[in-house]
Amino acid sequence: MRPVPQRLNSADADFETRFRALLDGKRDASTDVSDRVREIIADVRARGDDALVALTKALDSLDVADAGALRVDPAVIARAWDEADPVTREALQTAHDRITSHHRRQVPKDDHYTDGIGVELGSRWTAVESVGLYVPGGTASYPSSVLMNAVPAKVAGVKRIVMVAPARQGILNPLVLAAAHLAGIDEIYTIGGAQAVAALAYGTTSIAPVVKIVGPGNAYVAEAKRQVFGRVGIDMIAGPSEILVIADADNDPAWIAADLLSQAEHDPSAQSILITESEAFADAVETEVERQLQSLPRVETARASWQDHGAVITVGSLEDEAPALTDRIAPEHLEIATEAPETISERISNAGAIFLGRHTPEVIGDYVGGSNHVLPTSRSARFSSGLSVLDFVKRTSILKLGPEQLKALAPAAMELARVESLDAHGRSVGIRVNLAEARER
Amino acid sequence: MRPVPQRLNSADADFETRFRALLDGKRDASTDVSDRVREIIADVRARGDDALVALTKALDSLDVADAGALRVDPAVIARAWDEADPVTREALQTAHDRITSHHRRQVPKDDHYTDGIGVELGSRWTAVESVGLYVPGGTASYPSSVLMNAVPAKVAGVKRIVMVAPARQGILNPLVLAAAHLAGIDEIYTIGGAQAVAALAYGTTSIAPVVKIVGPGNAYVAEAKRQVFGRVGIDMIAGPSEILVIADADNDPAWIAADLLSQAEHDPSAQSILITESEAFADAVETEVERQLQSLPRVETARASWQDHGAVITVGSLEDEAPALTDRIAPEHLEIATEAPETISERISNAGAIFLGRHTPEVIGDYVGGSNHVLPTSRSARFSSGLSVLDFVKRTSILKLGPEQLKALAPAAMELARVESLDAHGRSVGIRVNLAEARER
Repeated sequence: MRPVPQRLNSADADFETRFRALLDGKRDASTDVSDRVREIIADVRARGDDALVALTKALDSLDVADAGALRVDPAVIARAWDEADPVTREALQTAHDRITSHHRRQVPKDDHYTDGIGVELGSRWTAVESVGLYVPGGTASYPSSVLMNAVPAKVAGVKRIVMVAPARQGILNPLVLAAAHLAGIDEIYTIGGAQAVAALAYGTTSIAPVVKIVGPGNAYVAEAKRQVFGRVGIDMIAGPSEILVIADADNDPAWIAADLLSQAEHDPSAQSILITESEAFADAVETEVERQLQSLPRVETARASWQDHGAVITVGSLEDEAPALTDRIAPEHLEIATEAPETISERISNAGAIFLGRHTPEVIGDYVGGSNHVLPTSRSARFSSGLSVLDFVKRTSILKLGPEQLKALAPAAMELARVESLDAHGRSVGIRVNLAEARER
Repeated sequence: MRPVPQRLNSADADFETRFRALLDGKRDASTDVSDRVREIIADVRARGDDALVALTKALDSLDVADAGALRVDPAVIARAWDEADPVTREALQTAHDRITSHHRRQVPKDDHYTDGIGVELGSRWTAVESVGLYVPGGTASYPSSVLMNAVPAKVAGVKRIVMVAPARQGILNPLVLAAAHLAGIDEIYTIGGAQAVAALAYGTTSIAPVVKIVGPGNAYVAEAKRQVFGRVGIDMIAGPSEILVIADADNDPAWIAADLLSQAEHDPSAQSILITESEAFADAVETEVERQLQSLPRVETARASWQDHGAVITVGSLEDEAPALTDRIAPEHLEIATEAPETISERISNAGAIFLGRHTPEVIGDYVGGSNHVLPTSRSARFSSGLSVLDFVKRTSILKLGPEQLKALAPAAMELARVESLDAHGRSVGIRVNLAEARER
């Protein structure tokens, strides 16, 4: 069966209606797991390690004598690195080093200054004390994601990074351990699901709690992160992956087809969209997608994604029309495969990451570009950013006045306290500047 | 009745137990309003303006003929400024100008560079397109909060800022309108509660949706923000206000008492904590709190807060013990009233804002210091920051490779795609560099 992605043309009368439907289309299979997650979290809070051991046996078929056995021996982590294929190790090292270099540029600088009337103002950045990194099990267990989550935390100066990963029947991906070793992580527990998130948020006898939890996971993990938010910080709730490719007709259709499939193979809910000026080029890309699907091991996943969520949009002019459409789509990944991609890129605000030109496939950003591959999905690039060092630091405002500065600012502060009927506020200022009215109010 | 705040001494044998209980104490009255909020949001999504009109009549006793009448005439907003007391206007102007100057320093800079092998990498910041600002009704309707939320959005470059505020029986605080005018807001709707949040998130015929929603509100508003999160961005969920004062015995007890009460008067759930070295000074502050309470209009609120949630902690040495205790408390506001406050401040990581020295009452930061008064509560300063320009911008990563750079990075990217079993990923790179193995895999 030939996959049939949606085909839209911006010149059609029904374009706006169909484009809106595309934007509003739900891709997440939203099973409501909130009650079950609430139970699991309550169980871990109440019974601690005993709950972890029981849940890990029941849900991950991993039977351990006690919670101590859930920790991966640091020697095993180091050995996973030593025993990895040297070619793989070199690739991981390249990725690690490029991610590190890029993220070092993101470390925010403190700002301390004295204003015109002598008030000292400051903004001071400090690292979050501890971070829990969730790594999914099975086929979604990616060593590259370990690096993308752990390196920014390390660069930020986070002192303790704890990894949790479900090990169904005791099996952990050795390259996930190798990547952890490379990133400097030696505290790893073979736990997963909502119980792992609960243990990280609340702590148990054998696992000290963390301050923030990051990393992707299934519906249970996502819901658990939502439920513990506030007790701890969390990163974004990741949805299925997306790519938007803006390509002119001068591209090799096979290259563009490969890029569309690189997202489609992730998940049946993933979304790949092409915007182009030429119906003929669109046809050629579709034909190539079909051809390449034949030889793809993940053919079922990629075909489902392309058929159910893929779209091909033709427009009269890429430069005139693509930026506005892109801002409405707000894609996680955007490739601009044209001769002068900057002229389009400059006019786009909403995109997690932009890949410019014909020689920058998005996959480079997944692994070795240096930028982060944890990016906002489901149109959240309209209001949020990819993972960065900023996710692992927080800012403290600092203010210092002497008697002169307080005297200068007191009247305005006391007037605002007065109109807001906050008398103790006014008094806290007035009592210091000895204004007669402070006592009266 | 004399209020009795908790008294702890770090030398006592049960100190750790009692300090932990203080940290874990719940102050929020957590009524579960999630089902009602879900209904309201569904109603606004289904019926749009009709639901808004009906809910505003039922919940805010404001009866309008149609949704168009829910918008405040821009001329009314401008007039509110014109008609405000000149003294109040000057105070608002001082606050506005100082907040603007300080927040301009927070605008993040784009970063664009070419690395050693010729890869172009960039981080580009753009403003969120539109923001909804929730302003509570009644006594919690503060013009200062309008400035604290709107100014950073303006400085960030947000094009459209929409304010919503419930107007029970049609009454809006004129100084909230005046502050809105000063901040450059002319789109205001007299709606509140979960229905206002729903209208901002999903839009109705008369109100275009926004991309992000900020501002404080009651339990319904907070729950509605939680429920629409993902569809739109939200700021933090604010809890009751807090202050921690670190003060040596050389302070005037009356000044410190006034500062403790300035938080306590906000809310019976607010929390004021004093850390000092001297039991005698602690006694003197408690006596002063009692004395000042007598003449405070909000005596009931402040007394409830001080009695139920206040605490006085004595330690052997402020410099040795206060920083670690403070990092565990992670207060929203921290005053350090000592001779050399920096020596303590430097060793503290977890605090929303720090006020240094005897002449910097926290209230200055509420109004005219320049820094933001929207700060992390409920220990969330361990992982989050006060409101800033960064809350109204988002970052796009940019990557550009030429054929040479792609050739250099292809082997590592393809190796990682291989070990992650993502064949279409490998192909997307391989097809461009024409490596023979790309076709084989």
